[in-house]
Amino acid sequence: MTAVRAMIRSHPEKLSHADVIGRCIDACYACVETCTACADACLGETRVESLVGCIRLNLDCAAICTATGSILLRANKLGHRQLLEAQLTTCIAYCRACAAECSRHAAMHTHCDVCAKACMECVEDCLAMLNTMRMPA
Amino acid sequence: MTAVRAMIRSHPEKLSHADVIGRCIDACYACVETCTACADACLGETRVESLVGCIRLNLDCAAICTATGSILLRANKLGHRQLLEAQLTTCIAYCRACAAECSRHAAMHTHCDVCAKACMECVEDCLAMLNTMRMPA
Amino acid sequence: MTAVRAMIRSHPEKLSHADVIGRCIDACYACVETCTACADACLGETRVESLVGCIRLNLDCAAICTATGSILLRANKLGHRQLLEAQLTTCIAYCRACAAECSRHAAMHTHCDVCAKACMECVEDCLAMLNTMRMPA
Amino acid sequence: MTAVRAMIRSHPEKLSHADVIGRCIDACYACVETCTACADACLGETRVESLVGCIRLNLDCAAICTATGSILLRANKLGHRQLLEAQLTTCIAYCRACAAECSRHAAMHTHCDVCAKACMECVEDCLAMLNTMRMPA
Repeated sequence: MTAVRAMIRSHPEKLSHADVIGRCIDACYACVETCTACADACLGETRVESLVGCIRLNLDCAAICTATGSILLRANKLGHRQLLEAQLTTCIAYCRACAAECSRHAAMHTHCDVCAKACMECVEDCLAMLNTMRMPA
Repeated sequence: MTAVRAMIRSHPEKLSHADVIGRCIDACYACVETCTACADACLGETRVESLVGCIRLNLDCAAICTATGSILLRANKLGHRQLLEAQLTTCIAYCRACAAECSRHAAMHTHCDVCAKACMECVEDCLAMLNTMRMPA
Repeated sequence: MTAVRAMIRSHPEKLSHADVIGRCIDACYACVETCTACADACLGETRVESLVGCIRLNLDCAAICTATGSILLRANKLGHRQLLEAQLTTCIAYCRACAAECSRHAAMHTHCDVCAKACMECVEDCLAMLNTMRMPA
Repeated sequence: MTAVRAMIRSHPEKLSHADVIGRCIDACYACVETCTACADACLGETRVESLVGCIRLNLDCAAICTATGSILLRANKLGHRQLLEAQLTTCIAYCRACAAECSRHAAMHTHCDVCAKACMECVEDCLAMLNTMRMPA
């Protein structure tokens, strides 16, 4: 059990579906790490000028996933469902755009390949989270 | 002229409407400051248990506005218009919710009153930004 | 191999000691997650007024570890060694203080126990990182 | 009176020296804005490869100042004085390094000139804050 699942399970307003939420939170922070790292790796490449769009999207995606992760860590059954759905939807859009941009460079740069995969995993886990939220309790 | 407007004007891919964007960026960071401060002031109140929902929304709103401000600082004419619109729309929703919650405590706590106003100013400036983006160039 | 280690290994200015650095980055973000979650769990406890100091330190520690993680993801052999040492040292101080505060509540609240452990793991990994930086290349 | 000073004045554990603290918080967030904007403006320059070191330091400095601003917004008279001193000292070191790097490009790029000045203002206000903290109450 990861630390974040232990935290959700010991929360006084315990959420059902701790696994889905915990996985989504971990995916968001993993995406923050890979996007921040990918931006920096791109900065170190010889033809950095061809990667400027990728760097910018990496930084935007890291910013969004930081917000999503932090908001999910405060999610509870009394929470603002519509707000959380809006944030997850926006997060999915940024992660998809970043994955698409990184994929264009994936054959050339391993860091873009790893980053695209982390972004798509975040998309999957945010979609699973949305589905869970929409299920009848 | 604030520093952020000077930054936008000296950007090599200069944006038109530097004033609208600069104002929106400043409003986002002002909202980060007041929401973070309001969460802490609520923590110091005698009846903190009645302010838990307010603290949580303050922290969520600060997280969203941090992301919005940072993304706007990377906005340029080549940028991802639909992504930015999604983020601004989500930001407006969180700021409105936080303003509504803070307003409920505004008569009792000046910090909630100041925070509600900063949130509503951020809403206004994000709406102005959306309008500017939708105008024909 | 975690994603972050794959990122460090595929960085064009590859660092030696990818394992030590990767572990430290992961520990920082794990600490961000547990501290943010612990602050929220404390807010949900019946006697929240006794946990205000813990919540504040949780939020401070999450803020510092976010900065440390992000800076480490940009660390490279050409980097600013003294600045990074200063940040790691400050991070260790905040994590120790947060672990000490959480430990005071660990018998009563499992989330404080889990959080104290995550903070101390971050301390260990930041110390290992400092040691690695001080070794002759 | 800026919003942040109104927030400090309405905090239930009111701090003396609201002006010094408020100014330091505003300087930190202004530095976050200019450093984030400077990193992006550098990315848009023709010879971006000559500005990679500047971009990295901009991003590091923005990360540190985000943490410092957020911690200062939670500062109160019962707080952890030594921790805050450590963070302010680290923040000063990063702001000075970023100002020095930006100054090297200031003749060529106005955004680096504006950013160097915002970093040095943040240094001044963090030093004033440290002095205030060390004064007998």
